[in-house]
Amino acid sequence: MALPHNHWVLTFVCADLPGIVHAVSGAVVASGGNITESQQFSSADTGRFFMRLQVESEASRGEFEAALAPVVERYDMTWRLDVVGRPLRTLVLVSTAAHCLNDLLFRQRAGQLPVQIPLVLSNHGSLRDLAGFYDVPFESLPVTDAASKAAFEQRVIDAVDEHDIELVVLARYMQIISPELCERLAGRLINIHHSFLPGFKGANPYKQAHARGVKLIGATAHFVTSDLDEGPIIEQNVVRVDHTRTPAELVAIGQDEESRTLTQAVKWFAEDRVLLDGARTIIFR
Amino acid sequence: MALPHNHWVLTFVCADLPGIVHAVSGAVVASGGNITESQQFSSADTGRFFMRLQVESEASRGEFEAALAPVVERYDMTWRLDVVGRPLRTLVLVSTAAHCLNDLLFRQRAGQLPVQIPLVLSNHGSLRDLAGFYDVPFESLPVTDAASKAAFEQRVIDAVDEHDIELVVLARYMQIISPELCERLAGRLINIHHSFLPGFKGANPYKQAHARGVKLIGATAHFVTSDLDEGPIIEQNVVRVDHTRTPAELVAIGQDEESRTLTQAVKWFAEDRVLLDGARTIIFR
Amino acid sequence: MALPHNHWVLTFVCADLPGIVHAVSGAVVASGGNITESQQFSSADTGRFFMRLQVESEASRGEFEAALAPVVERYDMTWRLDVVGRPLRTLVLVSTAAHCLNDLLFRQRAGQLPVQIPLVLSNHGSLRDLAGFYDVPFESLPVTDAASKAAFEQRVIDAVDEHDIELVVLARYMQIISPELCERLAGRLINIHHSFLPGFKGANPYKQAHARGVKLIGATAHFVTSDLDEGPIIEQNVVRVDHTRTPAELVAIGQDEESRTLTQAVKWFAEDRVLLDGARTIIFR
Amino acid sequence: MALPHNHWVLTFVCADLPGIVHAVSGAVVASGGNITESQQFSSADTGRFFMRLQVESEASRGEFEAALAPVVERYDMTWRLDVVGRPLRTLVLVSTAAHCLNDLLFRQRAGQLPVQIPLVLSNHGSLRDLAGFYDVPFESLPVTDAASKAAFEQRVIDAVDEHDIELVVLARYMQIISPELCERLAGRLINIHHSFLPGFKGANPYKQAHARGVKLIGATAHFVTSDLDEGPIIEQNVVRVDHTRTPAELVAIGQDEESRTLTQAVKWFAEDRVLLDGARTIIFR
Repeated sequence: MALPHNHWVLTFVCADLPGIVHAVSGAVVASGGNITESQQFSSADTGRFFMRLQVESEASRGEFEAALAPVVERYDMTWRLDVVGRPLRTLVLVSTAAHCLNDLLFRQRAGQLPVQIPLVLSNHGSLRDLAGFYDVPFESLPVTDAASKAAFEQRVIDAVDEHDIELVVLARYMQIISPELCERLAGRLINIHHSFLPGFKGANPYKQAHARGVKLIGATAHFVTSDLDEGPIIEQNVVRVDHTRTPAELVAIGQDEESRTLTQAVKWFAEDRVLLDGARTIIFR
Repeated sequence: MALPHNHWVLTFVCADLPGIVHAVSGAVVASGGNITESQQFSSADTGRFFMRLQVESEASRGEFEAALAPVVERYDMTWRLDVVGRPLRTLVLVSTAAHCLNDLLFRQRAGQLPVQIPLVLSNHGSLRDLAGFYDVPFESLPVTDAASKAAFEQRVIDAVDEHDIELVVLARYMQIISPELCERLAGRLINIHHSFLPGFKGANPYKQAHARGVKLIGATAHFVTSDLDEGPIIEQNVVRVDHTRTPAELVAIGQDEESRTLTQAVKWFAEDRVLLDGARTIIFR
Repeated sequence: MALPHNHWVLTFVCADLPGIVHAVSGAVVASGGNITESQQFSSADTGRFFMRLQVESEASRGEFEAALAPVVERYDMTWRLDVVGRPLRTLVLVSTAAHCLNDLLFRQRAGQLPVQIPLVLSNHGSLRDLAGFYDVPFESLPVTDAASKAAFEQRVIDAVDEHDIELVVLARYMQIISPELCERLAGRLINIHHSFLPGFKGANPYKQAHARGVKLIGATAHFVTSDLDEGPIIEQNVVRVDHTRTPAELVAIGQDEESRTLTQAVKWFAEDRVLLDGARTIIFR
Repeated sequence: MALPHNHWVLTFVCADLPGIVHAVSGAVVASGGNITESQQFSSADTGRFFMRLQVESEASRGEFEAALAPVVERYDMTWRLDVVGRPLRTLVLVSTAAHCLNDLLFRQRAGQLPVQIPLVLSNHGSLRDLAGFYDVPFESLPVTDAASKAAFEQRVIDAVDEHDIELVVLARYMQIISPELCERLAGRLINIHHSFLPGFKGANPYKQAHARGVKLIGATAHFVTSDLDEGPIIEQNVVRVDHTRTPAELVAIGQDEESRTLTQAVKWFAEDRVLLDGARTIIFR
């Protein structure tokens, strides 16, 4: 009887040296696999080599890992092996703006976003019903001072542990994350900023954009670091505006870009398409 | 025998008050004119009213001005009256990059850009042949120190007087303009900056963009003020890039956006479609 | 005591003649109004003149109409007078795809789409909960043959009467509307087609797009006429795709363009910004 | 003494089977090469496998070919080996529109387009000076009837032989190519069509676009086949327009999209990034 095929996604990062592709593809062949998708990049900036593969194979996970182990060791690789399409355990943080959460939940239910969301956490209560409509648990804890902020962040840490969270998404969560939490969630904390970074960092970017009279407004999904709005950029989009738009209209117009940009970044991350190369991201679309 | 029709373009700027449109359109009717294009905008930021009209009329310029004079006086308007399509006398400053100059000259010859260019002035000699192909006079003066820079700027001032220049275009002219010259040419000096302002002001914007890992690069055409790269924005465009692009490739990719953005800004300005509202521009496309 | 200000939106369509703007603005002045937004267009194709105004006035509706009546009569105008921001009574027809309905309802609740939806009507039951979450009544009637189709369309007609419907939106309603109903709802029936018309008319546009190997896919919001997918276009958007995308992925990618394109078209229509000029639309953005 | 490094570009097409990547990368390793760029695609439509590599190697061309020969034979591959950046010998056909030729020649001179153009051939004389400015030989032969058309096409055939032409570009050449010549130049004849295909095939696409009232106009670069405007699409771009644009303005607006789309397609082709998969193209950007 034919064994069921497994569909694996693999990422490798290591120093750029000759022979890596041959070594990796040799391990794939040795375990009876077939490469269905392959992307690679050699960074001139950092000298690192990045690779992402999708492989169909009849081998078990153990057999596949065993075949890859010598290659990984030889090239001193950072690597990941996962099943294509496995939903990523994702914690979403929100405040009062609904559009990003709505898009994430709608896309997730529609089967277009491979995440599983065990909890939405907010510093307000107003999005409880929206989460409820999609059958996602929702908790709110007010953040009004240093103590309540610390309590909120402790709840994040606990929820991450409790649900074995792999990604935390700031879906218009309007509080600055402490350096400690940034550090703890490094590489798995994604924010949507409502401007075309590096323009208009900080607060009220649409008001700044109006004052500056820009002709395009945008949104930026990025990893969060303790350096505010300076983390590695994952995705950006812009939309044309003109002089007739008030700051309030810019807010409404920009929401589309915010939600699609964040959802796209989350999708790529969940599909193991986002790799870090210093302060920049490699996106294997 | 029917008199030939004139096609006028009019712009008005004044404090926003009721009755302006009726007063202006009354003067148009009184002089036998017909409005073929009309745009207006009331700025909530500055309380100013902006209007641009195109009018077909059998009246002479004198008759038309006489009909408009009481309205202009009554509302204390800043205004302009010109002939639709009259080529604007334009001085172009360049250094060594050819793409913006090439686009301006090609479009001008193709009849798509209503400018007349009596002179291209450069701090290098390398674009002489390009100007020559389009039969445009070309002068170069090296800028190597304060004295030669002052001499260059004096040549700009002389050329502006000599040719009765209405617009000066910095088509990738890679020298900072002195505050005095900025002041003298205020409102008629347009620059193309090779980034999506306000991101990446100053030098080497593509290198900055690469280092920051942005996913879109762009270009910005703006009025020049003594505050470097902070003048009112006229037009902006962006194009998508990814992690594989080197700084040198960003330069090549960005050139398309630079030339189309600058040409668009010059075209709108030459058509009297650009009005200043404080630090912002009104673009009556 | 100062009377409250009214904010009116006006549209006028008539043969293009001199003096219209002056006559209209005169009536506005006579009724104590102030023009806050104004757009006009003279169609070279049809010789028609189109105008849209927003006017702040202390006059009552009756007073304002009385001031305008002589102008309207003199130029034999088709015209409309409404209150800025009044929600348009809108009937939405859907089948099983949720994304367009979700976007309409989300935007409506967020206060960004001036419509009021008394009913969602479907030939399937699957979107009942989505409508319910937004507290919108939902009815489903199966369409399986000529008789049930006729019954469905009769229900549409009855609902239009019952709720005094001003706009019917086909939000991925996957049945062809009969010529009789098209005729009855002419000018107030908007469809979203999931291709960049006129490319890929008819069924399965994404499959056609994949087979043809296009590099951009799109969506088109248009008025429905009895000539399938040939009605006047209101809005279009496209998004870049490449050879790696399967037809199923094109469907998912295209959904964003569909929902934003349809919502934009509905918004413009609800704001009286869409006027018909033969087979083309005038959009006063 | 270290031998100079060669930088090779390789493309392979064959039936999709396991082990190809390993076999190819093995040959690369065996010849001392290092893969600097790699892309692959398995077509679900045709069952074909496509691969493009860039390889740095100290091996000679002969040594490299010898290393690859067994792999190529084993998988029955169609393949190409070339030097990265070698200018492609390109014949350009034009009529009277200058914008596409101007862009090709400007980009070529600027070092951004790896082509070498030994001849521009036209059915008119008007672009002689433009070619001359870039020191490119220019010939014109009028096409007025069947005989002169046949003579023109014979001149194309002769020029292709004479200059060992690898690509023929129709840069707004406004004559239909005979089926015989299409056949003879199959896979190396690229046209720019001034619409967003498959919309508005045939003559006067901007006039058609105006009549249909589309909100975006575009351009399509495609391989030419005997089936008019139906050949495989290489690249497409669009730009937003509105109801105010006349057909003549659409022509001017569309020119930017035409020239950038054609130049992009030629660049990708010259870099061996365009492969045919039935009626579709694979673009390894």
